[in-house]
Amino acid sequence: MENREFSTPLDLKQIRVTDAFWHREQELVRTQVIPYQWEALNDRVEGAAPSYCMRNFKVAGRMMREKKEKGAAYVAPAYTFRGFQALPEDPEHPEGDKFYGFVFQDTDFSKWIEAVGYSLLQHPDPELERTADEAIDIVCAAQLENGYLDTYYIINGMDRAFTNLRDHHELYCLGHLVEGAVAYYQATGKDKLLHAAERFADYCCETFGPEPGKRKGYPGHEIAEMALVRLCEIDNQEKYLKLAGFFLDQRGHQPYYFEEEEKERAAHDGQPYQKSTDNSYHQAHLPVREQSEAVGHAVRAVYLYSGMADVARLCGDEAMEAACDRLWDNVTREKLYITGGIGATHIGEAFSFGYDLPGDTAYSETCAAIGLVFWARRMLQLKPRGKYGDVMELALYNTVLAGMALDGKSFFYVNPLEVLPRACHRDARKSHVKSLRQKWFGCACCPPNIARMVSSVASYAYTEADRYPLDQGGWNQPVDTLWFHLYMSSVLSKQVWVDKGEKKTLDLQVETDMPWGGRVKVQLRGDRVPCRLAFRIPGWSTGVKAGYSCGGIGGQVQVNAGGLAVKSAPEMRDREDVSDRHTAVSYREGYLYIEGVWSDGDEILLEMEMPVRILESDPRVRENMGKVALTRGPIVYCLEEADNGKDLHLCRVDLPGWDESGIETEVTEELDHPMTVLKVPGKRLAAAESAELYHPAGPVRERDVMLRMIPYYAWNNRGEGEMSVWVRR
Amino acid sequence: MENREFSTPLDLKQIRVTDAFWHREQELVRTQVIPYQWEALNDRVEGAAPSYCMRNFKVAGRMMREKKEKGAAYVAPAYTFRGFQALPEDPEHPEGDKFYGFVFQDTDFSKWIEAVGYSLLQHPDPELERTADEAIDIVCAAQLENGYLDTYYIINGMDRAFTNLRDHHELYCLGHLVEGAVAYYQATGKDKLLHAAERFADYCCETFGPEPGKRKGYPGHEIAEMALVRLCEIDNQEKYLKLAGFFLDQRGHQPYYFEEEEKERAAHDGQPYQKSTDNSYHQAHLPVREQSEAVGHAVRAVYLYSGMADVARLCGDEAMEAACDRLWDNVTREKLYITGGIGATHIGEAFSFGYDLPGDTAYSETCAAIGLVFWARRMLQLKPRGKYGDVMELALYNTVLAGMALDGKSFFYVNPLEVLPRACHRDARKSHVKSLRQKWFGCACCPPNIARMVSSVASYAYTEADRYPLDQGGWNQPVDTLWFHLYMSSVLSKQVWVDKGEKKTLDLQVETDMPWGGRVKVQLRGDRVPCRLAFRIPGWSTGVKAGYSCGGIGGQVQVNAGGLAVKSAPEMRDREDVSDRHTAVSYREGYLYIEGVWSDGDEILLEMEMPVRILESDPRVRENMGKVALTRGPIVYCLEEADNGKDLHLCRVDLPGWDESGIETEVTEELDHPMTVLKVPGKRLAAAESAELYHPAGPVRERDVMLRMIPYYAWNNRGEGEMSVWVRR
Repeated sequence: MENREFSTPLDLKQIRVTDAFWHREQELVRTQVIPYQWEALNDRVEGAAPSYCMRNFKVAGRMMREKKEKGAAYVAPAYTFRGFQALPEDPEHPEGDKFYGFVFQDTDFSKWIEAVGYSLLQHPDPELERTADEAIDIVCAAQLENGYLDTYYIINGMDRAFTNLRDHHELYCLGHLVEGAVAYYQATGKDKLLHAAERFADYCCETFGPEPGKRKGYPGHEIAEMALVRLCEIDNQEKYLKLAGFFLDQRGHQPYYFEEEEKERAAHDGQPYQKSTDNSYHQAHLPVREQSEAVGHAVRAVYLYSGMADVARLCGDEAMEAACDRLWDNVTREKLYITGGIGATHIGEAFSFGYDLPGDTAYSETCAAIGLVFWARRMLQLKPRGKYGDVMELALYNTVLAGMALDGKSFFYVNPLEVLPRACHRDARKSHVKSLRQKWFGCACCPPNIARMVSSVASYAYTEADRYPLDQGGWNQPVDTLWFHLYMSSVLSKQVWVDKGEKKTLDLQVETDMPWGGRVKVQLRGDRVPCRLAFRIPGWSTGVKAGYSCGGIGGQVQVNAGGLAVKSAPEMRDREDVSDRHTAVSYREGYLYIEGVWSDGDEILLEMEMPVRILESDPRVRENMGKVALTRGPIVYCLEEADNGKDLHLCRVDLPGWDESGIETEVTEELDHPMTVLKVPGKRLAAAESAELYHPAGPVRERDVMLRMIPYYAWNNRGEGEMSVWVRR
Repeated sequence: MENREFSTPLDLKQIRVTDAFWHREQELVRTQVIPYQWEALNDRVEGAAPSYCMRNFKVAGRMMREKKEKGAAYVAPAYTFRGFQALPEDPEHPEGDKFYGFVFQDTDFSKWIEAVGYSLLQHPDPELERTADEAIDIVCAAQLENGYLDTYYIINGMDRAFTNLRDHHELYCLGHLVEGAVAYYQATGKDKLLHAAERFADYCCETFGPEPGKRKGYPGHEIAEMALVRLCEIDNQEKYLKLAGFFLDQRGHQPYYFEEEEKERAAHDGQPYQKSTDNSYHQAHLPVREQSEAVGHAVRAVYLYSGMADVARLCGDEAMEAACDRLWDNVTREKLYITGGIGATHIGEAFSFGYDLPGDTAYSETCAAIGLVFWARRMLQLKPRGKYGDVMELALYNTVLAGMALDGKSFFYVNPLEVLPRACHRDARKSHVKSLRQKWFGCACCPPNIARMVSSVASYAYTEADRYPLDQGGWNQPVDTLWFHLYMSSVLSKQVWVDKGEKKTLDLQVETDMPWGGRVKVQLRGDRVPCRLAFRIPGWSTGVKAGYSCGGIGGQVQVNAGGLAVKSAPEMRDREDVSDRHTAVSYREGYLYIEGVWSDGDEILLEMEMPVRILESDPRVRENMGKVALTRGPIVYCLEEADNGKDLHLCRVDLPGWDESGIETEVTEELDHPMTVLKVPGKRLAAAESAELYHPAGPVRERDVMLRMIPYYAWNNRGEGEMSVWVRR
């Protein structure tokens, strides 16, 4: 693992997002989603199913307090099974001492506090922070003395805690609690919740592990793996990394843990054991290092793969990395929608088999696309390759954003690529596909997940690698590196090691018109700060020109289409030597590296060609035979009924040159949201006159039309109607 | 309703099917299906789920006998709910006094005895008849003194009989019992089972009806309606027709009966009422005369519509007929697969919305196609229109026959139009689609339904209308009519009224090479027998020549493409006059009528052009956009992997002339079954070299191929593989 370019996200405190596009999204989250979400998890949203989240914490906290007041240590009641989702018999009057909601309902809070943390970094808000602190007090009051913190078992009975890892999401609750606590700590410096999370994690370290007497299980819904790594990375306690590694090591070995624990439960209850486990649903069918095909519940899968990439990086685990590589190839070559969505089937919210990517029955859950972004960044941390950035960007700009309405007030859980509203209403096979975004969900994973992703988006844009790694006490590379994975206008700074114990600050101001234009200007400020800047050359660009000036020396470089070659301008040195006054430029696997010693006034300018691309699928994707999709930059386009009338399937594009000639781009501000739309020459099939369902075929009768295509993420903001990403060619 | 051409099927006793195609199918039923079925309903098939059918009859019969031996009238035990499908806890040792299997398990016997009856008519078999008589003894021994005969309630408790018409299929059992009993009586003249069926029907007449104190319900699964009409037609007892009419009249009126009985059951059991009824699933959402759209469970629907057509005919019910017309138009214009299958969704085995006819997730249950044949013939009985015959023929030759393997040993329940075996195995959304025919089914409706349809196929080929209707005592038309709806080689005779109380016999010998050729020769024998012969001009024929000789006078006639005009040859008289020596020819709505006074040596010869047709869908069928299907005569063709390799979706036909030029037909005897296959010029997409799932589109790279297409009904007789009816154009 020599000379590896491992990196970590740049601290969000060092970045301010000024980008028009992303600032708007972050403001939606701040002004719409976070306040709404707080109301929701306090059961105050009219017409929405109650969350019971904060109520459960209060019930658990009251139970704890009452016990303490009596002077006794807390002893939980004996366990009563209350189902995967427990609802009060009388919805108006839930009983005071009972747990209600899904078994994972605690995470409603954890996701909210995480989004709050990120948001406070970008936009301080004392009132929100006070609300958050009060919520944290409520949550922490529910924690047991031993650190355990999951209200489902605290309320229902601790004697059965950790006896159903497969279904009962305790370790999922741990993971989200850690994520939320770390974010809030990083934003505010307040560590009350972080300590609570550490105490729960410590309890899990005592409960799970290879040592005799400890449980050998692992999460039924993954997330704890990557959360524990994150905890380790902020407090440097190796035990958390070890526990993450243990969970990964245990997974998928025989005898299968989920079957064993089910047998134990049956025996305990005096019931006959009936196998009800599909281990592949939980990615627990094979040891993780032997997995090669992405299977099962898509969100679980990419959360797992994220944790695997983290552990591979921190532990130098080559077999784990190889599994990540195989799984990445499998997903991106066979199981990825062109919108960056994953999970082709609603049955199990799961991956289907290779190349089975139907548009109209797609599941493509918003959370799965978010998980894919998590994973992609962790692959980038493991090794900077443009392909990871391409997929991360694709998922983010398309499926993740499609999950939220342009006004931030309604959400998609499922993100189909083709919608016929009549089918959603009348065809039970498509009942999971909604023709309008929903206000909220009983299982509220997607909206808060969008909130935490959007508000932390900058941490996906920038990662860094320092020449002086703290854990080795030495230089492992000639100079620090800052990677630009996504392009968004922002102001940031990086601390650069110049000598052992000595750092300098490099300030950067990034300006770009992404995703609508491919121009990126980076202005640098510093006092002769050596640093290597790495710019992702997007796969969608047919050519990138990069110009820079560093200490008065300027250069230009051209990256060819496909990003496979660098043509240096004569004045450039295309090699890796570095000196105080020199720069070096190189290109490797999707990244353009410009190394220099930067001072005030230095500047880098990227101009990425951004043509409209006409894409087709691998022909093994049966549903897309004879169809194309149009993209421009990272944006995938779609036809909507509002622009093109009903029966979109009668339309086709008419692009004989297979390039953008004939296509017009137009900047519009409709829907109070600036965006670039496409006008594409097309044909529309004349409706048949015959009353016969089947009749002799003949030459096609079509008329010319100009098709209007809008960004996929912006669909369904003008009422119910048909939509289609793939169009006949 | 003046001058209506109502008709009834020609008595099967008067027809002997000599047709090579159908004789083979009937022999499969006789030698394979009927014996296997007998083993199945006696639980003697290794590896198949037990039917429990005959066992239940024996249990019920023993209970009856024991009571009688004790001298007491039979008193059933108090009702115990045993579920929709009751299975023994120990499969090896079912308890002796319990009912097992589906609530409708009695019908396994009824369907078998019906097929046995038809088969005995074509092929006397004393041993089979003895087995049947013994089975009838067992069944009749289970009947209660009051006539009730459904072992589910006889065994489980009569106090709850007829309290769950929606789900518990008692009236469905009645219907099948009647159908089976009538068929066996007509075949053998033995009336023991017929009397049992009449007694059960009589009991239902006493239980249900408009009179005060009688129940107002109707069947949850329709069939009793058409069965009661059939019973009325053989024994001329109007009460059965009235009960059928009552069931139809009641259906769909509010308050909904199925909801009312559910409330009553809940009240009886002291449970809160929770609505669990989807009335449209049972076609009980609207009064039947107000229904216009085919909805719900497809088999139920077409069984209902069959009964409606029967009652419309016998009662002269114009509103009922109008509903039949609307429903027919709805099904055939919006909800019919090109294979004659219906029921586009497996969820509820139901009709989907209009034009939603996906090929790969199709349900298209074999039984639904059979029900469509039932309905079509009844529409023909109501009014002879070529369109009904076309659909009847289409369903019969394609979906019905596809339901059974060419060796008669395995069966499809679901008949998709496109199959990718990998999807059936790995995509739970297609788990209802089997990639191989199954030996038998727990819910064994399709195989026995095929058996009764195939063995009675001649009753769909010929119907007759007599000039002297018994119920009016007068002449209602100038001459008797015999309709040819389907063409199959056969020897038949018709009794023709020549005067009140006087009949003559017209013997006919039909020879044809259908479905592979369009030539039909009818040789007549008789002694100056006046009769009008009506020949269906198939919608698939581009032109039909008919020649005849009658008493030495010959004529020729040509029906144009589309069947819309008659061109008489000069020597023909194109009018309706009739005399002892003359003939008259006319054409009306798909039928060519040739009237004459026939004697030995007279002959009619039809020559129907049978080109390969290249058909496309109404463009509202989204799944078929840009695709065509090939048919020839009544046969629909498909591509199979065995002939064309994997990845059938890469193939397209290359038929620039939109006609059969370039297509070769070939007669093959492979699979031990003579049939005509097609060789069609086509192109096959070159597989992509790129490892990219999505890549820039460009001109299509294809190579020439000769596609081989086989009849759809013959698919899946060479192992597992891909299949597709619709092919890209």
